[in-house]
Amino acid sequence: MSEYVAPLKDMSFALKLAGMEQVAALPGFEEASEDLVAAVLEEAGKFAHGVLSPINWEGDRSGGAKLENGVVRTAPGWQDAYRQFAEGGWNGVPFDPEYGGQGLPWVVTTAVNEMWQAANMSFGLCPLLNQGACELLSHYGSEEQKRTYLEKMVSGQWTGTMNLTEPGAGSDLSQVRTKAVKDGDVYKITGSKIFITYGDHDLTENIVHLVLARTPDAPEGVKGISLFIVPKVLVGADGSLGERNDARCVSLEHKLGIHASPTAVMAFGDTGGATGYLVGEENRGIEYMFMMMNNARLNVGLQGVAISERAYQKALAYAKERVQGKPVGFKGDKTPAIIGHPDMRRMLITMKALTEATRALAYTAMAQFDIANRHAEPEVRRAAADRVALLTPVVKAWSTDVGVEVASLGVQVHGGLGFVEETGAAQYYRDARIAPIYEGTNGIQANDLVFRKVARDKGAVAFGLIAEMRDVAAAATGDLAPLGAALMAGIDSLETATTAIAGADPVTVAAVAYPYLRLFGTVAGGWMMVKSAIASQAALAAGEGDPEFHKAKLATATFYATNLLPAHGGHLAAVQAGAAPVMTMTDDQYGIDL
Amino acid sequence: MSEYVAPLKDMSFALKLAGMEQVAALPGFEEASEDLVAAVLEEAGKFAHGVLSPINWEGDRSGGAKLENGVVRTAPGWQDAYRQFAEGGWNGVPFDPEYGGQGLPWVVTTAVNEMWQAANMSFGLCPLLNQGACELLSHYGSEEQKRTYLEKMVSGQWTGTMNLTEPGAGSDLSQVRTKAVKDGDVYKITGSKIFITYGDHDLTENIVHLVLARTPDAPEGVKGISLFIVPKVLVGADGSLGERNDARCVSLEHKLGIHASPTAVMAFGDTGGATGYLVGEENRGIEYMFMMMNNARLNVGLQGVAISERAYQKALAYAKERVQGKPVGFKGDKTPAIIGHPDMRRMLITMKALTEATRALAYTAMAQFDIANRHAEPEVRRAAADRVALLTPVVKAWSTDVGVEVASLGVQVHGGLGFVEETGAAQYYRDARIAPIYEGTNGIQANDLVFRKVARDKGAVAFGLIAEMRDVAAAATGDLAPLGAALMAGIDSLETATTAIAGADPVTVAAVAYPYLRLFGTVAGGWMMVKSAIASQAALAAGEGDPEFHKAKLATATFYATNLLPAHGGHLAAVQAGAAPVMTMTDDQYGIDL
Repeated sequence: MSEYVAPLKDMSFALKLAGMEQVAALPGFEEASEDLVAAVLEEAGKFAHGVLSPINWEGDRSGGAKLENGVVRTAPGWQDAYRQFAEGGWNGVPFDPEYGGQGLPWVVTTAVNEMWQAANMSFGLCPLLNQGACELLSHYGSEEQKRTYLEKMVSGQWTGTMNLTEPGAGSDLSQVRTKAVKDGDVYKITGSKIFITYGDHDLTENIVHLVLARTPDAPEGVKGISLFIVPKVLVGADGSLGERNDARCVSLEHKLGIHASPTAVMAFGDTGGATGYLVGEENRGIEYMFMMMNNARLNVGLQGVAISERAYQKALAYAKERVQGKPVGFKGDKTPAIIGHPDMRRMLITMKALTEATRALAYTAMAQFDIANRHAEPEVRRAAADRVALLTPVVKAWSTDVGVEVASLGVQVHGGLGFVEETGAAQYYRDARIAPIYEGTNGIQANDLVFRKVARDKGAVAFGLIAEMRDVAAAATGDLAPLGAALMAGIDSLETATTAIAGADPVTVAAVAYPYLRLFGTVAGGWMMVKSAIASQAALAAGEGDPEFHKAKLATATFYATNLLPAHGGHLAAVQAGAAPVMTMTDDQYGIDL
Repeated sequence: MSEYVAPLKDMSFALKLAGMEQVAALPGFEEASEDLVAAVLEEAGKFAHGVLSPINWEGDRSGGAKLENGVVRTAPGWQDAYRQFAEGGWNGVPFDPEYGGQGLPWVVTTAVNEMWQAANMSFGLCPLLNQGACELLSHYGSEEQKRTYLEKMVSGQWTGTMNLTEPGAGSDLSQVRTKAVKDGDVYKITGSKIFITYGDHDLTENIVHLVLARTPDAPEGVKGISLFIVPKVLVGADGSLGERNDARCVSLEHKLGIHASPTAVMAFGDTGGATGYLVGEENRGIEYMFMMMNNARLNVGLQGVAISERAYQKALAYAKERVQGKPVGFKGDKTPAIIGHPDMRRMLITMKALTEATRALAYTAMAQFDIANRHAEPEVRRAAADRVALLTPVVKAWSTDVGVEVASLGVQVHGGLGFVEETGAAQYYRDARIAPIYEGTNGIQANDLVFRKVARDKGAVAFGLIAEMRDVAAAATGDLAPLGAALMAGIDSLETATTAIAGADPVTVAAVAYPYLRLFGTVAGGWMMVKSAIASQAALAAGEGDPEFHKAKLATATFYATNLLPAHGGHLAAVQAGAAPVMTMTDDQYGIDL
């Protein structure tokens, strides 16, 4: 089994492209120098390669996490890896040094997160969820809550979870039925939650559940939901661990992928009520959760990037090794490996180009998140916040769709062996499939994009981005002029579609949301690749960096512009076709033969 | 677990569209009346629904077929289902009544085959492979071989397998190293074969292996390979079973999907040499095998259709049942099921339209196969043979790619539950993934299409089909004019690309083969859907058939034309970009970061 290697050159390049220099100049990030960031990435890369990657396949094949006598046992190697992970301080990368964090920018954290997800997505979910919980408590926890819980979550001594979904409340959180009844200073929580990632495990002595629940007199719907801290083990005033709380994992899901990530059904209050502590104010739980969720959505988009990278590395290694048939046009004696076959090169460059484009876009969005949080000028913060809000559903949905497609190509590169589990390519195909679903399905992302991010402001923020994309296309001159022209055509499609969305009725907007999102992703990827090509061409002219890296970047950008970007026309046509083709057929006609 | 229901209305419609009337008029098919065909389909549908579908999920979850003490045990329920299958005469549908077959057209067999694959792909592979073996022996077996083996394979008393692949000879059969040494009237076979579907099982008392091997003095490459019958159990002159042959299953692959289909590693001659009987002449094995393989490729394409249908039925049932959130624009009190959400409708109609388009194309190709075999006029036979040769790689690759995409959408429709194995949608996503790989990878299909089927005759056969497509587009008038125009635009792209392929150098042809194939499939699907729309419009005008069926057909055709067909522009752009974007990057640049 080949191990994951962090693509440090491309990550550094993508960070620079995303505006790392501007981020490093933000208040509070004075120490995030180029050298420090490079050192962090290098260390993270070593850890991902040497510790997380080697246990990934066995974590899958062993059947993953198991519930035995009420206790969740993680997969072989997990405990040791987690201990090293926490000791390395990796849980705390983006958090306030006051609570033990490293205080690094989110965009740097993003590159580090990508490594965990690529090396071992099942493992990586534990710190990913913990990171979301930490972020939430950083913003909304009381000082006491931060002292009691946040510090230990930042250090990794405990981990955090998110408890949102219930059997009747999946995508629609307004249906949350878990109850919270005030009992003195605390609340008694009763109800059940499903799909709780790392809802129980044996990696830490305590787990901090963040739970959405409803107080008895709360209003109906999302405005009546509150957020509670429900620790697995109750914590004394002195921070010592006390009694077991009334919160238990009652079963684990048997899933298509990410087998080693325990997905728990949680029961709260089976024996009288779990003790919970209100975060912030009553009835504002959804608001708090959504603050965290936007960041989580970018991180799930990043999982798409990560699984693409992993699938690509695996496929490339096989294609360079396997010999089978002489490639068309090959004249020599010794048959080369299958990477010599044109169709194999096509599959591999497709994987590479999509991985790089989605990475660049994800990092770009996360850099805007840092600027939105930290910039001295309110207007700059506001503009960056708008930008990240616009890009978040695109990064989440487009990158995770791409992750599935790239992982599928990875299986294909291996031929028959790709279908054999021992090869390992199939695991990525299975693991990748969750990312378009969780943290808001990609259909929900598309709705978020068209309604909240485009239609609501009549496309104002989107048109601003489109103008910036045009500047990039216009700057692609000389040898890069064909790439600039291809991008400009894509931008034309995006602008036309945006105008259509901004003026359409709600049903039309909803009906064409998905092709619009795909169009957006495709063109935004082109924007990133042309921007990359301009940077690489400049670097080559200036003799900076590894010329082979920059030549490869020009090649992937050219492939993207000529072979992938032209899909924009098809997506635009679907948007322009409007609601009728999607809405005309009756429910009965869908199942006419059944 | 919802059970598969054969889509009899759409199957009958697709048969008619494919030219069932013309097929039924062929010599030898006099009995294949509309009523008889309808009765056969109905019975097959009952069997698929009642016997094969109910054991599909358990066959997967039980871990599938198992090798225990040298014997392969099939999954729970397999033996009983197979007994009923054989008793029903289902193995013999297309074969000569002289050997116990029903003598029905291949296009009817195709509809029946689709049901087996949709109801239970793991089970369906057994008769599928047997069918290929029967076809091969029908053509090339000696009279004695037919009497000894074919009759029992047609009845289903024994099953047939195909033994082609070896560890060093996957896609490149010229590397086959299995040896066959003449020993009196027979040959002694020694070597090992991998990926042998149903290479061993407990369904029948004997298994007839068709094995590619090389005689000692055979020329190198594909012209030195011969084909042998190697029965699992030796057969006496009187047809009685004798000694066990020296042919054994040594292990089963642990696969991503089709768990209940045993994929065997076979060892021939471990204890001295397996007894084999030459089929036809020495050194012509590949030629024989390819005759059978073209049909097998259509059948694998059909598996793509089948898994799409199954995934669609499952997703539709869920979408009609699950309630979650009020759809945009919904005004009533009682929240409808999620099929009311526009994006859900989009996913479902995408699945439905792709299933119907791939089905219609597969049946159309298979009808040409019947005409090529049976028509009284040699010129008609020849033209039909050219047509089926052209369409075979398109049906195989496009339908199986679509199968993966539709199965993936099926998971998505289920949200989080789609990722839980117990739901069943994930099985289709796993099972579907083999079809783009086996029976010639889709990359190999693309090469077959561009080199053998298009470039070799400078596009002559393809241009003939394109002209016929234009007739269909031109016939779409009145309400259907927009569909006709959309199809015409697609045909323009296909014609431009075909001209480019016909005149390009070999490396360019190979480099753009895949987008050309996708373009071909996309436009051919449009051809089928517009043809369908014309037929349904006529039926509605004439008051024939179920009007709801025909309205649904117009809706799926409209969706296809407006939302799926416009992808042709992106594929054409990739073809027109030529070889450079695919071939420029060096091998080292692919792995610059690794």
